[in-house]
Amino acid sequence: MVELNKDERIDDLLTHGLYIIQSDEVFSFSLDAVLLGRFAPAPPKGRIIDLCSGNGVIPMLLATRTKAQIDAVEIQERLYHMANRSVAMNKLEHQIRMIHGDLRDIHLKLGQGGYDVVTVNPPYMPVPAGEQNMNPHFAAARHEIHSTLEDVIVASGRLLRNRGKLAMVHRAGRFVDICYMMRQYRIEPKRVRFVHSRQDEEASMVLIEAMKEGKPGLRIESPLIVFNDKNEYCPELMEVFYGKKGSI
Amino acid sequence: MVELNKDERIDDLLTHGLYIIQSDEVFSFSLDAVLLGRFAPAPPKGRIIDLCSGNGVIPMLLATRTKAQIDAVEIQERLYHMANRSVAMNKLEHQIRMIHGDLRDIHLKLGQGGYDVVTVNPPYMPVPAGEQNMNPHFAAARHEIHSTLEDVIVASGRLLRNRGKLAMVHRAGRFVDICYMMRQYRIEPKRVRFVHSRQDEEASMVLIEAMKEGKPGLRIESPLIVFNDKNEYCPELMEVFYGKKGSI
Repeated sequence: MVELNKDERIDDLLTHGLYIIQSDEVFSFSLDAVLLGRFAPAPPKGRIIDLCSGNGVIPMLLATRTKAQIDAVEIQERLYHMANRSVAMNKLEHQIRMIHGDLRDIHLKLGQGGYDVVTVNPPYMPVPAGEQNMNPHFAAARHEIHSTLEDVIVASGRLLRNRGKLAMVHRAGRFVDICYMMRQYRIEPKRVRFVHSRQDEEASMVLIEAMKEGKPGLRIESPLIVFNDKNEYCPELMEVFYGKKGSI
Repeated sequence: MVELNKDERIDDLLTHGLYIIQSDEVFSFSLDAVLLGRFAPAPPKGRIIDLCSGNGVIPMLLATRTKAQIDAVEIQERLYHMANRSVAMNKLEHQIRMIHGDLRDIHLKLGQGGYDVVTVNPPYMPVPAGEQNMNPHFAAARHEIHSTLEDVIVASGRLLRNRGKLAMVHRAGRFVDICYMMRQYRIEPKRVRFVHSRQDEEASMVLIEAMKEGKPGLRIESPLIVFNDKNEYCPELMEVFYGKKGSI
């Protein structure tokens, strides 16, 4: 039995019989999160932490790939509660621990250097100038209200062990910012995939794997193309959705 | 009439009836230079400077796209002389001026802030540890012996006017270094194309357009794929080679 608010529904994660509680009143997961869930390194055991975890989609996808313990931090109480119920609904409480907290001081609770992998799908946009009339749940998920890119990178550096890995999805247009700040904080980008809606279009998103105290040297992997020229999902995307492809 | 050394030959640049003097004793141009010649911004007039110009292939390709005055700097005397003869052979002396010099102090001769565009296909590799038994001409073209990536970026910043553009081709694996240093020296990467030999392979090279004092914000354009799955050049590459596609 799972308790649902009036506005909530249960969506199929399409893989490993997983379901997730979502609502139109708060931010729902998108393709970015699904891709990060497959792109992030998933060591067979150890400790993983997901920041800006939202409704918990990334830890649940990671749980299909590893037996590692997964902590997940979300600042919005509403989303934290939804994620908690989704974890219970999928009987993943033994592996996933949702934490209601702020990534900027979460090391005070969780300690420094204790994680092998950090995953994060952070808010993409700087805080807009002028008045913000948005739904505060959407605003916090989309804009750097609670945490900037720099906050996210600093927090990741604190939580990771030496040579631990950070996996991030972000807008392709922020890639220079990301490279610059990661190197500033000694987290070296090592592996990248750019995501293009179509073969002949600009990249919309970027998936980045970086290593704390890693040496310089980057692999730009093959482009990840979402739609073919018939407007169908490309085969690699279909494999990602249905979990047939363990990692990308 | 063109004077050739015994080891020299004349190669067809395949576009606009251009030819170039090359030799197996020194570094010959490669696909990287041809791509940069098409990728670099080519304002209809103004002043362009090509650094690490080698045998002058990039200025000659640029001359097919613009009436701008093109200066070109090469530190190796042998290559400088070859480039000079190629320019004369193509009757481009009115547009291209080859300069034998070192980019690290070339601003003392050419002044600061006087160029609209800098193009550069620099040596790709750090100076190797241990002894170097290589042909010194190849060593200088491939390794950062006369100039490091930082030297190249500093020199470009000195030569460019405000909001002038730097176009560079480099190994994809150096992309973080490039982003980090460009931003340090206030030259902001704005437009990028990664070059993949094949669709499903890592990028080997990267083409970057950056702006002096530009605002952050990057476009990762569609991937440039060299070979299709039949091992033929992709149509875009054929258009580049034969100059049918003015710019990429």
